[in-house]
Amino acid sequence: MSDLKNDLLLRALKGEKLERPPVWMMRQAGRYLPDYIKLRDKYDFFTRVQTPELACEITLQPVDQIGVDAAIIFSDILVIPQAMGMTVLMEEGKGPLLPNVVKTETDIDALICDNVEENLSYVTKALALTKKELNGRVPLIGFAGAPWTLLCYMVEGKGSKTFDKAKQFCFTQPHLAHKLLQKITDVSILYLKAQVKAGADLVQVFDSWSGMLSPMDFKIFAQPYLVQIADALSEHAPVILFPKGSWYALPELSKSSAAGLGIDWSLTPLMARKLSDNRITLQGNFDPAKLLAPIPEIKKAVKEMIDGFGTEKYIANLGHGILPNVPVDHARAFVDTVKEYSAVAVG
Amino acid sequence: MSDLKNDLLLRALKGEKLERPPVWMMRQAGRYLPDYIKLRDKYDFFTRVQTPELACEITLQPVDQIGVDAAIIFSDILVIPQAMGMTVLMEEGKGPLLPNVVKTETDIDALICDNVEENLSYVTKALALTKKELNGRVPLIGFAGAPWTLLCYMVEGKGSKTFDKAKQFCFTQPHLAHKLLQKITDVSILYLKAQVKAGADLVQVFDSWSGMLSPMDFKIFAQPYLVQIADALSEHAPVILFPKGSWYALPELSKSSAAGLGIDWSLTPLMARKLSDNRITLQGNFDPAKLLAPIPEIKKAVKEMIDGFGTEKYIANLGHGILPNVPVDHARAFVDTVKEYSAVAVG
Repeated sequence: MSDLKNDLLLRALKGEKLERPPVWMMRQAGRYLPDYIKLRDKYDFFTRVQTPELACEITLQPVDQIGVDAAIIFSDILVIPQAMGMTVLMEEGKGPLLPNVVKTETDIDALICDNVEENLSYVTKALALTKKELNGRVPLIGFAGAPWTLLCYMVEGKGSKTFDKAKQFCFTQPHLAHKLLQKITDVSILYLKAQVKAGADLVQVFDSWSGMLSPMDFKIFAQPYLVQIADALSEHAPVILFPKGSWYALPELSKSSAAGLGIDWSLTPLMARKLSDNRITLQGNFDPAKLLAPIPEIKKAVKEMIDGFGTEKYIANLGHGILPNVPVDHARAFVDTVKEYSAVAVG
Repeated sequence: MSDLKNDLLLRALKGEKLERPPVWMMRQAGRYLPDYIKLRDKYDFFTRVQTPELACEITLQPVDQIGVDAAIIFSDILVIPQAMGMTVLMEEGKGPLLPNVVKTETDIDALICDNVEENLSYVTKALALTKKELNGRVPLIGFAGAPWTLLCYMVEGKGSKTFDKAKQFCFTQPHLAHKLLQKITDVSILYLKAQVKAGADLVQVFDSWSGMLSPMDFKIFAQPYLVQIADALSEHAPVILFPKGSWYALPELSKSSAAGLGIDWSLTPLMARKLSDNRITLQGNFDPAKLLAPIPEIKKAVKEMIDGFGTEKYIANLGHGILPNVPVDHARAFVDTVKEYSAVAVG
């Protein structure tokens, strides 16, 4: 860690006193950058993900072009179901499709749980290459999807407004659901450890669909597995948990072994600090659609956000992934406003 | 009101002491009932909505077959954009499509704001007919979409995961957004008053997409218009506001002239009571997907929900519309469990 020229993100996760918060954007690698779009037109999704040189190039783009304080490896949460033996199709602009969903215990038993590092060596190779290319400029973030969110895709087979097939599976066959969640958790822990070993300075776990669960069901189907992952990883690297939509989980997760918690824009900085009792570093929570506002509006809203969270125990970020239609100079305005924050406060 | 044989819902909205809460289900008219599906196969969506005899028949089905404590008129929130001159297409199972979206001030100026009662006379006729057919068995609920949610569809043109076009419109042209929201509000007030005049005993305003907004943007683009509607209607009939996903708005909306607030399943009864300071009747908040669980699980969860909210200032309902794939006997188990509640508590 000590050889990082910019270690703001790691210091924020330790709760150190900082002049300004670090800033990065979820889904910053890919989507809206013209240089990414060129690669997207040339190589299909899994070629980009599975070719370390391409993944590395895409990961570095926002560091070089937008000036974020961290790189997050270009990959996808569905590499885990894929490594476990499931077919995952990705049609550009259409979202994922898993044609053979998990339905029975036999399906769960058939999932592959060993050779994770080998099956996902393209990710660790991409991380090692990126770490080398970054040459200590900023920390490198590894990531995985949370077990509940991966179960959603593995059972539902595609995105959904309600994920009611996934929920029906959990509500009618909780024993099978927990068996599946535990398998995903075990594989994810191995996978995240391998990412740290390959060069990730920290890891984030994306529970993109946890907000579909009631507070009670979150405690049954999501929280125990998030906590297991945080516990298993925290001695290796700082862990950020991002249970999107699950603001109700902040009181308990702020007591977990995670170093940081991601939050979306459905709560104010004040509410978030109150719910987490100011115990933990918070990351977020700019409405991604607000990056479509005029630049002066973006700058004003970013300043208000940092005013609300303060410069300590805080990582400036969006409340979810950047939208594909965000103009590059708007993304840059977001990042620049955070970086100029201390100057503003002093001046 | 006094001629209602079952006025539990109205008494719950007044905060009267009740032995058990009233129960109904959002989207109860339509979707999952076999008799509805027969009509759906015979008549297209807008024929069902615009033919008072069909709308009445569909509205009565859950009262007759499931035993709910209220009827809600079968209609759609998009009848307002339609009455304002916009084309609204509804493909079965695909969601709505508005091919000519609102983009400019000229588009807003072209929207029709008079003749609301005349343009929507099929709804008031359906209400009058249903009121007559109900013959005082249960109260009849009228409804409208909230201005923010209608703006979403009118600008975006269809459903969306992020409604970023709608948000971009609001963030880049707030003056136009407010002009549009005010027009929708004015029309909605006339429309809801006409519904009450035609026989609706109370009205509900559905802000299905308000949870897409940050607490700050909710106060700008959603709340003022919800409050205007509640203020204009509350002397005519009780108003329930349902800003889905906007749990953060409970403290302020509980002080509004609304008689009740709908909530989704992202918060516990305890949190909801705390946020609303036990000032107002709450309605909700069963996870609609939990109706796919086995019946004993449904019964257990419903009892826990009522235990949490208590029998006063409470209307048992789902946290969003019933899903089309819910078995009829599961819906009935939900309703029966609420109706048996006092017996359970006493026995």
